[in-house]
Amino acid sequence: MAHRAGPKTPSGMLTDLYQITMAYAYWKTGITTTEACFHLYFRGNPFDGGYSVACGLAQVVEYLEGLGFTAEDTAYLATLTGSDGAPLFPDAFLEWLAGFRFTGDVLAVPEGTVVFPQEPLLRVIGPIAECQLVETALLNIVNFQTLVATKASRVRLAAQGDPVIEFGLRRAQGPDGALSASRASYIGGCVATSNVLAGAVHDIPVGGTHAHSLVMVFDSELEAFMAYAEAMPNNAVLLVDTYDTLEGVRNAISAGHRLRELGHDLVGIRIDSGDLAWLSKRARELLDTSGFEGTRVYASNELDEYTIESLKDQGARIDVWGVGTKMVTAYDQPALGGVYKLSAIRTPGGEWEPRVKVSEQTAKVTTPGLLRVRRYTDADGVFSGDMIYDELVAPASPCVMVDPADATRRTSYCGTDEAEELLVPVFDGGRLVYEVPPIAASRERAIEQIGHLDPSHVRLLNPHVYKVGVELGLFERKTALILVARGIAEG
Amino acid sequence: MAHRAGPKTPSGMLTDLYQITMAYAYWKTGITTTEACFHLYFRGNPFDGGYSVACGLAQVVEYLEGLGFTAEDTAYLATLTGSDGAPLFPDAFLEWLAGFRFTGDVLAVPEGTVVFPQEPLLRVIGPIAECQLVETALLNIVNFQTLVATKASRVRLAAQGDPVIEFGLRRAQGPDGALSASRASYIGGCVATSNVLAGAVHDIPVGGTHAHSLVMVFDSELEAFMAYAEAMPNNAVLLVDTYDTLEGVRNAISAGHRLRELGHDLVGIRIDSGDLAWLSKRARELLDTSGFEGTRVYASNELDEYTIESLKDQGARIDVWGVGTKMVTAYDQPALGGVYKLSAIRTPGGEWEPRVKVSEQTAKVTTPGLLRVRRYTDADGVFSGDMIYDELVAPASPCVMVDPADATRRTSYCGTDEAEELLVPVFDGGRLVYEVPPIAASRERAIEQIGHLDPSHVRLLNPHVYKVGVELGLFERKTALILVARGIAEG
Repeated sequence: MAHRAGPKTPSGMLTDLYQITMAYAYWKTGITTTEACFHLYFRGNPFDGGYSVACGLAQVVEYLEGLGFTAEDTAYLATLTGSDGAPLFPDAFLEWLAGFRFTGDVLAVPEGTVVFPQEPLLRVIGPIAECQLVETALLNIVNFQTLVATKASRVRLAAQGDPVIEFGLRRAQGPDGALSASRASYIGGCVATSNVLAGAVHDIPVGGTHAHSLVMVFDSELEAFMAYAEAMPNNAVLLVDTYDTLEGVRNAISAGHRLRELGHDLVGIRIDSGDLAWLSKRARELLDTSGFEGTRVYASNELDEYTIESLKDQGARIDVWGVGTKMVTAYDQPALGGVYKLSAIRTPGGEWEPRVKVSEQTAKVTTPGLLRVRRYTDADGVFSGDMIYDELVAPASPCVMVDPADATRRTSYCGTDEAEELLVPVFDGGRLVYEVPPIAASRERAIEQIGHLDPSHVRLLNPHVYKVGVELGLFERKTALILVARGIAEG
Repeated sequence: MAHRAGPKTPSGMLTDLYQITMAYAYWKTGITTTEACFHLYFRGNPFDGGYSVACGLAQVVEYLEGLGFTAEDTAYLATLTGSDGAPLFPDAFLEWLAGFRFTGDVLAVPEGTVVFPQEPLLRVIGPIAECQLVETALLNIVNFQTLVATKASRVRLAAQGDPVIEFGLRRAQGPDGALSASRASYIGGCVATSNVLAGAVHDIPVGGTHAHSLVMVFDSELEAFMAYAEAMPNNAVLLVDTYDTLEGVRNAISAGHRLRELGHDLVGIRIDSGDLAWLSKRARELLDTSGFEGTRVYASNELDEYTIESLKDQGARIDVWGVGTKMVTAYDQPALGGVYKLSAIRTPGGEWEPRVKVSEQTAKVTTPGLLRVRRYTDADGVFSGDMIYDELVAPASPCVMVDPADATRRTSYCGTDEAEELLVPVFDGGRLVYEVPPIAASRERAIEQIGHLDPSHVRLLNPHVYKVGVELGLFERKTALILVARGIAEG
């Protein structure tokens, strides 16, 4: 349950200008209601990883439900001009835009689901102008949240069960960059965020310690610790590295004794600089020999999955990981290259006609059809492969799927593996038919799903590639369409 | 003039929980009104560059003016509990928070100013609890916008005067990550954005072309181009690489002839894949030999300052650069490590007492005092160096500044160079005393300021380090305070 609303982004205007100019071209050509099918997918897992975690659907729902243009919006659009100084859009089109609502069908992969390259995360079917206008916002929302949820999932795995708290607000990409990142980090597996607004808006647990400035305000570190401990006896995590870390631990222990007099205990200490492996071990010794075995060591300072893994390897005695910048900006790959591509057009006769884009780069070639994804699970509950198929040409059983990167690699599913449809209905004719789960449920799903992956797919370095194939019939149709588009065969 | 309001971020709650727990500790200790001085600065230029462009002050002003907590906010804070399940905050503190407003003094560097490591971009003086509560949001706003403005400035320099349009919305970090990025990209030197909302909210020119989907909707590329050209005769930039780029150019030329019949012309073509150097030269030839010398070649596809520089070196015939992902996420360094540090406390007697934090890492040591920055300009109008000084100990003339990284490197300013104060008053006792310039003026300032830098400071690779020093008296005081803090000298 959300405690307050977040910032409200005007829906219609959150788009590239070219979506509106294209919508206008469709309107002018009289084909706004021609139905089209688009898919949103990405071409490679981020961070050279073996999987991704779908995220952002809740905001997609919010966006599509609120979609529209206000009078203020169309008034602004009326001011835009072309190369000759004349308006870009006639009034009649702007009136049409003012009445614009989303009326399409959306299928989507639920948040927290593990997903892989080439698989549609969203499928949108509707009048072409609507499908077009929503492209940019859908990409913006899903790209970023999926990226950060994936990063957080990796960080959580590196922490091997230790709690990870997201501390990224100050380095995140704008206020909402932070809000989206806190949400996605939690779904990916963090236990809390430092961002109070994210806590209130998205119902995420909030947590934190204190800053160096608190220590510097008082005449001594010990005085500062005592003041903080007395103010917050049930939440005392003391930052020990303002002057000298181990001296800081000794002062924290003194504050810990005071806390015990008050009937509480020292929850933790935090180290934010220096050699975290060495310092955490010395800090642990000091705490243990002073009878503070239950006090936890928090660490922060530019952490990510790689530094956490390395600190674990070195036997660092860290119990709680504060991860900020590297997670909320997805530092080593700050964008997921998700795309949103047309794959079919409905003819005036009502038939779906598959479409393909070939491009100068093979990786940018699209897959035609009305796609769905079937995930197979083996008898041990391990995900064994995902098959992309065209629902207009449902796969036979036994069915064969083809590796799109190497057509000679094929897998046959004889029907003994359990199969699950990844894409579920979200909007039907513009009506919401999906209940967005509570955020904690999406987080649980993300954690549970990782458990169904073979460990070889989740390791940080050079993971084994998860099998995603294209159903044979679809593969053959795609090949034929590409040959036509390249002028090698007749259409 | 803004055409519409942007999303409104609730001000008070956009903070780390620890700011509120620290404010509570100050409140509980009865020192909320103790005055403190904080500075916001960064420790290194992003992208291994030689300069940065300050950005975000307009949003800082908006944030501080709107700062406060609603009843809904304090109701949420009342639900937070500590390790024993008891509330973190007593009602009396939450009542105090409900009446909280910003009453401090702020100095800031105007947007578009070139800035360098260690220099304060903002200085905040006020009651300690206020200074503390605003930390996270100030960092969030200034870090990201300064980062992106700097990136855009570099991209603009690489484009050598060609227009750069920002196309990043779909890969930006959330809706507001995009809005902030569009704003900062424009101030850094872009000529327009594709983001319609950013255009309306921030008064930035908007521009764009069309997508591959438009071409795929129609039965042929030529048909699509004709439809688009007829709908938008005064804004026709045709994307030519859906099937085969050079064939696409030929189709665009056919559409261009049709446009001329309509009394318009073909504004441009866009190439979005393949070898942009080779394809742009062939496209230019085709356009020129067909009488379309005035039609501009747009290029996009994961561009940044390095690819643009390389394409320029290869003689690519590109006239307009569409830059998205790499700019709006600041891809090669997606966070500026800006920090906000306490530097002085006012004693009950009214005296300012400098404070320093030493840390385990030398780079994290802070500079004490009430800092300002003086920029010197030589007789040729070239910025010759910046000096950080403490306004309580104003520098003598001639004055000496010390390189903080090597105390034996010193520069003496004899007073013949012109000196400018970089930080200007923005809030005085919580009252806004600064008029935020129109965004176009901040953009002009950014471009004009680059012209005052020696070219060696703006080159992309291994730039010459711009001279930023600490005034000798301040340097000596800082050294003495560090020695005391490290226990090497008596306090």
